[in-house]
Amino acid sequence: MSLATLDTSQHPNLPASSATLFAAKASKKLSFEQIAQHIGRNEVAVAALFYGQAKASPEDIVKLSELFGIDHALLEDQLTGFPDRGKSVEMPPKEPLIYRLYEIVQNYGYAYKAVLNEKFGDGIMSAISFSTKVEKETDADGNNWAVITLRGKWLPFSRF
Amino acid sequence: MSLATLDTSQHPNLPASSATLFAAKASKKLSFEQIAQHIGRNEVAVAALFYGQAKASPEDIVKLSELFGIDHALLEDQLTGFPDRGKSVEMPPKEPLIYRLYEIVQNYGYAYKAVLNEKFGDGIMSAISFSTKVEKETDADGNNWAVITLRGKWLPFSRF
Amino acid sequence: MSLATLDTSQHPNLPASSATLFAAKASKKLSFEQIAQHIGRNEVAVAALFYGQAKASPEDIVKLSELFGIDHALLEDQLTGFPDRGKSVEMPPKEPLIYRLYEIVQNYGYAYKAVLNEKFGDGIMSAISFSTKVEKETDADGNNWAVITLRGKWLPFSRF
Amino acid sequence: MSLATLDTSQHPNLPASSATLFAAKASKKLSFEQIAQHIGRNEVAVAALFYGQAKASPEDIVKLSELFGIDHALLEDQLTGFPDRGKSVEMPPKEPLIYRLYEIVQNYGYAYKAVLNEKFGDGIMSAISFSTKVEKETDADGNNWAVITLRGKWLPFSRF
Amino acid sequence: MSLATLDTSQHPNLPASSATLFAAKASKKLSFEQIAQHIGRNEVAVAALFYGQAKASPEDIVKLSELFGIDHALLEDQLTGFPDRGKSVEMPPKEPLIYRLYEIVQNYGYAYKAVLNEKFGDGIMSAISFSTKVEKETDADGNNWAVITLRGKWLPFSRF
Amino acid sequence: MSLATLDTSQHPNLPASSATLFAAKASKKLSFEQIAQHIGRNEVAVAALFYGQAKASPEDIVKLSELFGIDHALLEDQLTGFPDRGKSVEMPPKEPLIYRLYEIVQNYGYAYKAVLNEKFGDGIMSAISFSTKVEKETDADGNNWAVITLRGKWLPFSRF
Amino acid sequence: MSLATLDTSQHPNLPASSATLFAAKASKKLSFEQIAQHIGRNEVAVAALFYGQAKASPEDIVKLSELFGIDHALLEDQLTGFPDRGKSVEMPPKEPLIYRLYEIVQNYGYAYKAVLNEKFGDGIMSAISFSTKVEKETDADGNNWAVITLRGKWLPFSRF
Amino acid sequence: MSLATLDTSQHPNLPASSATLFAAKASKKLSFEQIAQHIGRNEVAVAALFYGQAKASPEDIVKLSELFGIDHALLEDQLTGFPDRGKSVEMPPKEPLIYRLYEIVQNYGYAYKAVLNEKFGDGIMSAISFSTKVEKETDADGNNWAVITLRGKWLPFSRF
Amino acid sequence: MSLATLDTSQHPNLPASSATLFAAKASKKLSFEQIAQHIGRNEVAVAALFYGQAKASPEDIVKLSELFGIDHALLEDQLTGFPDRGKSVEMPPKEPLIYRLYEIVQNYGYAYKAVLNEKFGDGIMSAISFSTKVEKETDADGNNWAVITLRGKWLPFSRF
Amino acid sequence: MSLATLDTSQHPNLPASSATLFAAKASKKLSFEQIAQHIGRNEVAVAALFYGQAKASPEDIVKLSELFGIDHALLEDQLTGFPDRGKSVEMPPKEPLIYRLYEIVQNYGYAYKAVLNEKFGDGIMSAISFSTKVEKETDADGNNWAVITLRGKWLPFSRF
Repeated sequence: MSLATLDTSQHPNLPASSATLFAAKASKKLSFEQIAQHIGRNEVAVAALFYGQAKASPEDIVKLSELFGIDHALLEDQLTGFPDRGKSVEMPPKEPLIYRLYEIVQNYGYAYKAVLNEKFGDGIMSAISFSTKVEKETDADGNNWAVITLRGKWLPFSRF
Repeated sequence: MSLATLDTSQHPNLPASSATLFAAKASKKLSFEQIAQHIGRNEVAVAALFYGQAKASPEDIVKLSELFGIDHALLEDQLTGFPDRGKSVEMPPKEPLIYRLYEIVQNYGYAYKAVLNEKFGDGIMSAISFSTKVEKETDADGNNWAVITLRGKWLPFSRF
Repeated sequence: MSLATLDTSQHPNLPASSATLFAAKASKKLSFEQIAQHIGRNEVAVAALFYGQAKASPEDIVKLSELFGIDHALLEDQLTGFPDRGKSVEMPPKEPLIYRLYEIVQNYGYAYKAVLNEKFGDGIMSAISFSTKVEKETDADGNNWAVITLRGKWLPFSRF
Repeated sequence: MSLATLDTSQHPNLPASSATLFAAKASKKLSFEQIAQHIGRNEVAVAALFYGQAKASPEDIVKLSELFGIDHALLEDQLTGFPDRGKSVEMPPKEPLIYRLYEIVQNYGYAYKAVLNEKFGDGIMSAISFSTKVEKETDADGNNWAVITLRGKWLPFSRF
Repeated sequence: MSLATLDTSQHPNLPASSATLFAAKASKKLSFEQIAQHIGRNEVAVAALFYGQAKASPEDIVKLSELFGIDHALLEDQLTGFPDRGKSVEMPPKEPLIYRLYEIVQNYGYAYKAVLNEKFGDGIMSAISFSTKVEKETDADGNNWAVITLRGKWLPFSRF
Repeated sequence: MSLATLDTSQHPNLPASSATLFAAKASKKLSFEQIAQHIGRNEVAVAALFYGQAKASPEDIVKLSELFGIDHALLEDQLTGFPDRGKSVEMPPKEPLIYRLYEIVQNYGYAYKAVLNEKFGDGIMSAISFSTKVEKETDADGNNWAVITLRGKWLPFSRF
Repeated sequence: MSLATLDTSQHPNLPASSATLFAAKASKKLSFEQIAQHIGRNEVAVAALFYGQAKASPEDIVKLSELFGIDHALLEDQLTGFPDRGKSVEMPPKEPLIYRLYEIVQNYGYAYKAVLNEKFGDGIMSAISFSTKVEKETDADGNNWAVITLRGKWLPFSRF
Repeated sequence: MSLATLDTSQHPNLPASSATLFAAKASKKLSFEQIAQHIGRNEVAVAALFYGQAKASPEDIVKLSELFGIDHALLEDQLTGFPDRGKSVEMPPKEPLIYRLYEIVQNYGYAYKAVLNEKFGDGIMSAISFSTKVEKETDADGNNWAVITLRGKWLPFSRF
Repeated sequence: MSLATLDTSQHPNLPASSATLFAAKASKKLSFEQIAQHIGRNEVAVAALFYGQAKASPEDIVKLSELFGIDHALLEDQLTGFPDRGKSVEMPPKEPLIYRLYEIVQNYGYAYKAVLNEKFGDGIMSAISFSTKVEKETDADGNNWAVITLRGKWLPFSRF
Repeated sequence: MSLATLDTSQHPNLPASSATLFAAKASKKLSFEQIAQHIGRNEVAVAALFYGQAKASPEDIVKLSELFGIDHALLEDQLTGFPDRGKSVEMPPKEPLIYRLYEIVQNYGYAYKAVLNEKFGDGIMSAISFSTKVEKETDADGNNWAVITLRGKWLPFSRF
């Protein structure tokens, strides 16, 4: 099985921590699932952390430092600030896998809005008070299916 | 409870069927959930059909015609072609609810890719051989949560 | 004193309610402050409602119908759906007054982020669970100052 | 509590002073609130100065040099010119916190314009003869609220 | 001599007043210089008013109504609101004459900034507290030269 | 008084001569006005030359070399080619001072065109056979005003 | 032989004169070469006039009116203003023939600049004091070649 | 007379050969006309080759190596591949000289199309089976005129 | 089986002939394959003709007129000019089927270039002297495969 | 015959493997056809692999390592991750050869969609479960023709 790696020449605007963490991951040959089990978070959250899109807690930093044998002070220095999110994906995405997700928003955006509005009223599904997960299903014919779940708090528009 | 409606001056590029169907829906005061139950499809798929983003089967046309009392020939004329998808949402989306979905792709795009690649190999989650649904959860504190599930067939890149 | 009006040829994508409401406002020669007092909402919220960017409650519709002498059924028909927000301002804004607000985001965006993150942690200020107001101050030299207050709930990023 | 830091690989177009100041801030572990108290300016202005979006006075340079133990000549060399504003935030902003501010402009832009025009006449709120501040409020339920105040001089359009 | 006219199919987003005024101007065969003399304003301001980029005072409306024989109530109705500026020129401009002005900003923008900063300090030249004029000069060789003067109040950035 | 300086990390696409000249200017603490007097050109032209937007004559190179004590051969090597204009300002400009000039074109573009066409006929004001200057005025109330003059040859469209 | 026609649904932003002239041309079945001979101008200039990109002289209007049997007053009304150039071609051009011209600029732009600068010095080839023509050549093998000649006055940058 | 040079900081995406060739050209103080005579090609083609927009034949490489005293193996290594065209000019061009050519396409694009279609039928003028040249003319009044000739094979659309 | 139809509200910039032809096709319930057989052209070419992207010969017009019972003069009037190609597809395409073709260019563009250059030398595959076809294959497992063939004349870059 | 090479200054965002592989290819003077024969894949797939657009299997890595004499561990390190596709071609493509492919999508996109929908129903041709090849044909007149075949699995839209 192949592991996800990072080629920094393709991602010049990721934070320094991304290079550190992906190099360690490649060296230890660990999957995000394995890392997630070690630090007790969802694997998507861990991958987001590696791409600089999620914040590491002090405990995360300790555990990552132990797991990968990275100097704790270096990792703390690189991970202690607040993520500067949004720089990893060029929009519209050119990467085919990510484009499919973008296309789902493009095609079903108003359908989601109409159904959510009718179910919840005037508001939005939060992308902040939010979690997500990825699951794998295999059907009777042996076909694999990816299942992505998005779960966000419903925020009604304030009346003022 | 309010129902989702369509103001055609805000959506000049939707197909003629959108105006027909939304006008009937407003007149009959039916939610997408109710329509979905009537025609036996998921409510997101029904909303997508109303926005011109999903194809109606001949049976769908019959049932919609009956439910709304629209002349069958008119509806068949407007719905019998192939959807010209992608014209409903301006990208990047300016609508706040739809933007949150876009932002999820922007922030978690590479995390999804990394996790999916490690789980399934080199490929994509299909947005065509695909279904989706919206659910409502209420937690112990009375907060509402929206849960969107995306389920797509895994397509490995062909080796050639 | 002049009143804000709407020239629909300059705003072809606003909802039908915008034309109805602005025409009534011009006819009755009422300011947003006066309308706001009548319906018991903030004047910015009222203006947003006129531009199709905020939802009217059933009581708002009754009061607006009474104030302007618009047929209640017509107004209900035009205002009962969910706002399709974001279509009123072209971004980047070409209108000088609106551009100044955009420029504040452009110039102070990261300063706000840094200060908010240090005060509140990793999260965002909600633009949904949110209210805003406009005030006028006159200093000792007779200069007028506009004061815009933005107040949003702090939403911490979920850990998952 | 975490402090705001700067990862220069994510901000290649900031001035040299940004790297100098953020490195010193991280080393001294000072918040913008603490730095602001030291030099007698608002914390948003200080953060803007760190991002190259506000000008330092000679006194600011002296105080920053003292506070951080940075060579005065170096700091003067890097801060003595005129800020080349606007390069820090990519527009539309991809960063979620900054996007929410952008969205407020997008959704309420014409509402602000209408209300301001009716209150002040034909003109704009200056973003130059301007100050801003950030405050934290906690409501009875323990929820935190961010309050951003924008205060700009009203500039009427000249008649000519 | 030819007069400037308006072809509304080329400018679908101008306000209704533009069509009214330009039609009257064509009918009366008046130049902007002549109209300006009649209402006592600069001809550039008058042309801006015709394109919906400047506000008419009540006196302007009276004088324009008289000069062109347009019903006063109609003109007041069309001109009494606040201009929604910025919609007339597509940027970057495709029109060659307007492009040359854009090119001057593009080529000399930083030179103006540097010279203005050194002369006035940290701030901007206002485009609101601002006037402009156009003059014609003919040199000894019979060549014509256009001279455009921009005069704006200097606004220093507030220290806060 | 502060002097305009150049931070090359903010302007990675300027020619090598810009770094050389701005470093010398900072070292000698000379304003563009002083440099302009020395070499006998307008200060805007000199600033444009520093930003790589105007050509230096052999005499300019000699005088700049003398004034700043830069090796003549180096300066000749860097300045002897033809300027590759237009790379200094990002359009639309994000810098507030430069944006104001852009906004003048955006708001008054068609007004200038209409007035110029009526005064001169069908043609353009040249931005090549062109000069410009910046002046400072102080009014009776002590307010400063910036005056920018644009003077370009009128070029009529050829008839063919 | 086919003649060039205009489908106004494909060109909604051309001036009213374009529809008038192209309809007359189609009715009279005349080529641009024939029209050009009649009014004594180059056929490219005539086609530009038809697309609203060149000004008609009073004599042109008389001759076009005669040739096509169009009411002189109507044509004068539609053609007497100043062309609002640049709206006919969407850039980058999607039309294959026009794209090839665009591609020539894209590929050879700097080569033209380098050669012109070395031949003429620092300046530009005018697109205003300019004429152009199209010719057809057939080589010995029977292949046809299109030859487009661009002839513009050289304008040296002013020294100031 | 000045010679065209290359400042690589302004053109970071040109091939390595561009830096090599322009450095040699500056060192030998040769114009494109002189180089063209030496290698027997048109000077525009030679300049295009220097900017990486045209392919060098083996004979060109030998002659350039001899003329400039560049090691033949180095030049062969840098020039032997296939040009990756189109990266030299940013579109729309910001450089004034190149913009004028772009403007000619923008203004006369449909006029060229109409005239070419009437002369040749349905097809395009090739930009591949294509040559171009630049000439200098001086008229009786001493004005210089640049004449650019574009000559491309006519390609009719295939019928299938 | 469903037939491809045209909803003109989704395609406002197609030529008038598109509405005529698609309405006739829907009325006669003919597929492009059937129409192609009738007029003796490839079905992709026929569909392109319906979308205004290919030219009809006089014989095509006669046959289409006969097949659909459309008045010959009307069809000749609408189809006799030269196609104004490129307006049918918005780029990047939002339609999922068309996007996949775009993605193939995006992902394999340089691979095609490298292989074509090595096989044919420096040049391009013509999109004008070009034909294309679509075929359907069904494999042993009953899966359907679409096969699109692109065949274009190789055009070597001219040496000049 | 020339071989395709890579100038990394023109492609700064390709993965590290691209530089390694193209350098080896240039050194061994092998065409993609020769490499393809060695590793048993189609030459377009091999070129895509070189540009970082296709995944190498472990066997591919062994064979490439042997063929080029590259250290196996280095190649495995650079090629073992998942391709981050889509970064090689700038869209719209500026490269003429790649632009022609883009133009085919632009011109024939809806024609392909209509024909495919009529042949296969509502769905898309996969670009993932996909292969492609390039062939060379020479006609009786000695003209060369490039033939590109695209073969993708048909994916019907799921009904849900």
